[in-house]
Amino acid sequence: MGYNNLALHTDKYQINMMYVHWKKGSHNNVRVFDLFFRKLPFGNGYAVFAGLERMVNYINSLRFSEEDIEYLGKQEENYEKEFLDELRRFRFTGNIRAVREGALVFPNEPIIQVEARNFENKLVETAMLNFMYQTLVATKAARAKSVAPHLTFMEFGTRRAHEADAAVWGARATYIAGFDATSNMRAGKLFGIPTRGTHSHAWVQEYDNELEAFMDFVDVFPNNAILLVDTYDTLRSGVPNAIKAAKYLTDKGCRLAGIRIDSGDLAYLSKRARKMLDNAGLDYVKIVASNDLDEYKVANLLVQGAKIDIYALGTRVIVCADTPSLGGVYKLVAKQKGHEYIPSLKISGNPEKVTTPGFKKLYRIINSTTGSAEGDYIANYDEDVQGLDRIKLFDPVHTWIYKHVDNFKAVELLEPVFINGEQVYELPALAQIRRHYTEQLSLFWPEYLRLLNPEIYPVALSEKVWKTKQNLIDKYVKE
Amino acid sequence: MGYNNLALHTDKYQINMMYVHWKKGSHNNVRVFDLFFRKLPFGNGYAVFAGLERMVNYINSLRFSEEDIEYLGKQEENYEKEFLDELRRFRFTGNIRAVREGALVFPNEPIIQVEARNFENKLVETAMLNFMYQTLVATKAARAKSVAPHLTFMEFGTRRAHEADAAVWGARATYIAGFDATSNMRAGKLFGIPTRGTHSHAWVQEYDNELEAFMDFVDVFPNNAILLVDTYDTLRSGVPNAIKAAKYLTDKGCRLAGIRIDSGDLAYLSKRARKMLDNAGLDYVKIVASNDLDEYKVANLLVQGAKIDIYALGTRVIVCADTPSLGGVYKLVAKQKGHEYIPSLKISGNPEKVTTPGFKKLYRIINSTTGSAEGDYIANYDEDVQGLDRIKLFDPVHTWIYKHVDNFKAVELLEPVFINGEQVYELPALAQIRRHYTEQLSLFWPEYLRLLNPEIYPVALSEKVWKTKQNLIDKYVKE
Repeated sequence: MGYNNLALHTDKYQINMMYVHWKKGSHNNVRVFDLFFRKLPFGNGYAVFAGLERMVNYINSLRFSEEDIEYLGKQEENYEKEFLDELRRFRFTGNIRAVREGALVFPNEPIIQVEARNFENKLVETAMLNFMYQTLVATKAARAKSVAPHLTFMEFGTRRAHEADAAVWGARATYIAGFDATSNMRAGKLFGIPTRGTHSHAWVQEYDNELEAFMDFVDVFPNNAILLVDTYDTLRSGVPNAIKAAKYLTDKGCRLAGIRIDSGDLAYLSKRARKMLDNAGLDYVKIVASNDLDEYKVANLLVQGAKIDIYALGTRVIVCADTPSLGGVYKLVAKQKGHEYIPSLKISGNPEKVTTPGFKKLYRIINSTTGSAEGDYIANYDEDVQGLDRIKLFDPVHTWIYKHVDNFKAVELLEPVFINGEQVYELPALAQIRRHYTEQLSLFWPEYLRLLNPEIYPVALSEKVWKTKQNLIDKYVKE
Repeated sequence: MGYNNLALHTDKYQINMMYVHWKKGSHNNVRVFDLFFRKLPFGNGYAVFAGLERMVNYINSLRFSEEDIEYLGKQEENYEKEFLDELRRFRFTGNIRAVREGALVFPNEPIIQVEARNFENKLVETAMLNFMYQTLVATKAARAKSVAPHLTFMEFGTRRAHEADAAVWGARATYIAGFDATSNMRAGKLFGIPTRGTHSHAWVQEYDNELEAFMDFVDVFPNNAILLVDTYDTLRSGVPNAIKAAKYLTDKGCRLAGIRIDSGDLAYLSKRARKMLDNAGLDYVKIVASNDLDEYKVANLLVQGAKIDIYALGTRVIVCADTPSLGGVYKLVAKQKGHEYIPSLKISGNPEKVTTPGFKKLYRIINSTTGSAEGDYIANYDEDVQGLDRIKLFDPVHTWIYKHVDNFKAVELLEPVFINGEQVYELPALAQIRRHYTEQLSLFWPEYLRLLNPEIYPVALSEKVWKTKQNLIDKYVKE
């Protein structure tokens, strides 16, 4: 039923605007759109960009099938046949620049830049924003992992993800942000993410007694069994039975990998279980904890001295429970006219909804002395930032707040991904994206990265971009 | 890359349990699992079941591809070749019973019952729970629509949905629960849901002035244009320009369909805009409102006398912002032994996590005098409820709370969907599912359906089921 074709993964208004542009002859005019978000999720100090691979695959396979055309032909809008023929021939022919996956990104800076004909720039908006879910999950996962970077984190959320796509792309996003494995086998197969699993309560219920269930399980997995110990009573039944199973394995020269606690007071139970295991000479048996965990619960468990080696996070990470939407937007910022780009502004009664006009470049300003990021800097496309001796980073709203950086390296963050519709960017391996994320983290002062009340990382506009924006605002206000 | 095969849309522990069952020879034992949820989302009094069509398609196409097998062959678990061969031959051969899509469902009652071999019942758990996202969205949408059943509701959430699957299945779920249209073209094509759209701010920015943008738009859509009026200034520019465009259409014998307000004070702006339109003789022009709306904001707008005809709901419905996960569970409740079903219990330190054991039937008890639902009734598979003259509905925890119903009809809610792996249930058309939902609503007293602090609808256990549960709890506690 054409489930896999994503050409129609868009809003009707995009098709309608394509149609009006085509009717009015403005469909070949090239425009620049910025994709960005206005507010960081979860009260975090940064977001972790993820989703580019999905976007690239989407753009590469963007075709209207005959089935799509037939469906469009039946709309009440009565699209003309020639328009439908134009859609039959549709290919993305524009330019896309994007930040690398795994990069730290901040509010109001372009993460993706689409420079394309009106016939193309409208169509892709909805899908590109939809794929930003991955950035949301990566950011949530980054927060959790940041609480205990030395411990192992597993993504166990598939059953609570919002349908199948969210499960796999969400798992991938958590892996980018430092998680160590996922339970989702499809994500494992599609992306090469390590997969891990334990067993369910039903496995224990299958047997008349828990010990028998454990014995059969470790018999089959003598070296990588993790036993779920809370089906009846964690300390009185589960852990003692797990110890028996572990001893049985020891006699065979094997080792029980771990136990898992999925309910009750995880701090108390893990400490008691650790002691019981240690007293039985099983200090190598790991303790896995799960049960609606998130970064706050993990932090609280650590404070209590919980003896947990592996955290399995499910629901709250995969659905991004405390901020389940990122609020990404995609705004027209410039119109190509000959070889120039004319800045375009969207004004609004809500000051934070006023866009930053112009075809722009995005730099990360690295202090050459400390090696740390001083701020991000948005310049016009024709400005030379690398050549400057000194750069002024000022707050675009509270302009009296500023700093100068003298000795800096300006790293351009937006890299060409498509040029004239051709993919020019080689998608990095997932391991490389993960590494890029870790490298990125090391550029930032810990004050920007902390869980609660992080310092606000500066995102500055160049003098030129700032003035363009003010002039356009003035112009609209006068009109 | 095998993206569309959902056989691996499962957790690793399911595969591992299949493996251990197979190794231990218990893979052919038939077990009964109940899929249910423990707590209603959004503080609502009911949930609207959606997702069955997706589940049926999933079960019907459940095959391991060679690519899947190859991937499984490389796991550290070292699955035996014969097991992988068994997977190659895998077919779902069990029975599934389910409530109809569009039905109102309540906590702790089986919505889906899977009766299948251990080799099959484990595998499907994760996917079935994952698809329950649709029930969550349908419930959220039902709440919104219930605030103003006489008005039009449109689903506009694709860009904020958690990836592509959530967008289409979510759109379908809102349609089941009474929404009138979606913006998502793929959902329109796949499910035949009516699609609607307006235009974006970028359309207005494309022009040097707003009026010109409106004129071009209505020129192309003379009978179904909805103009977005808040790009610059809703009352000083947007609405006056829309009125000019509407008059231009009137001269051509056409009618402007509507205007859309997407920011600012929707109550105030809609009232002012209505007056301006009416004064211009344009009382037929509809007002569409959007901007992070949900059931609370719609109710608040109604209280303020907002003049809004069409509500476009996006983010908060599609991500189910205030309860982004349903918490569905899938629990072993009975083991087949010859022709009998032996009840199985999962006990827990959390009283609400104790399951209701047994292979059960679910009835909706309709009072024959009033035609209204008195409560749901869970009986053992071998109990005859239809034949009773009087039925006692008692609270399974606070057993002194009860009522008798004398003159009733017991409607069985779980219908056979698969028998011995064969689909025996004809998937109803979406229009029929929608109708079923409306019919269901009419069975319930409004006190169960209201937005805030609804009455708790009784879900009772038969004496037999209740006693079985108590006896099993006693047994485990003694052990």
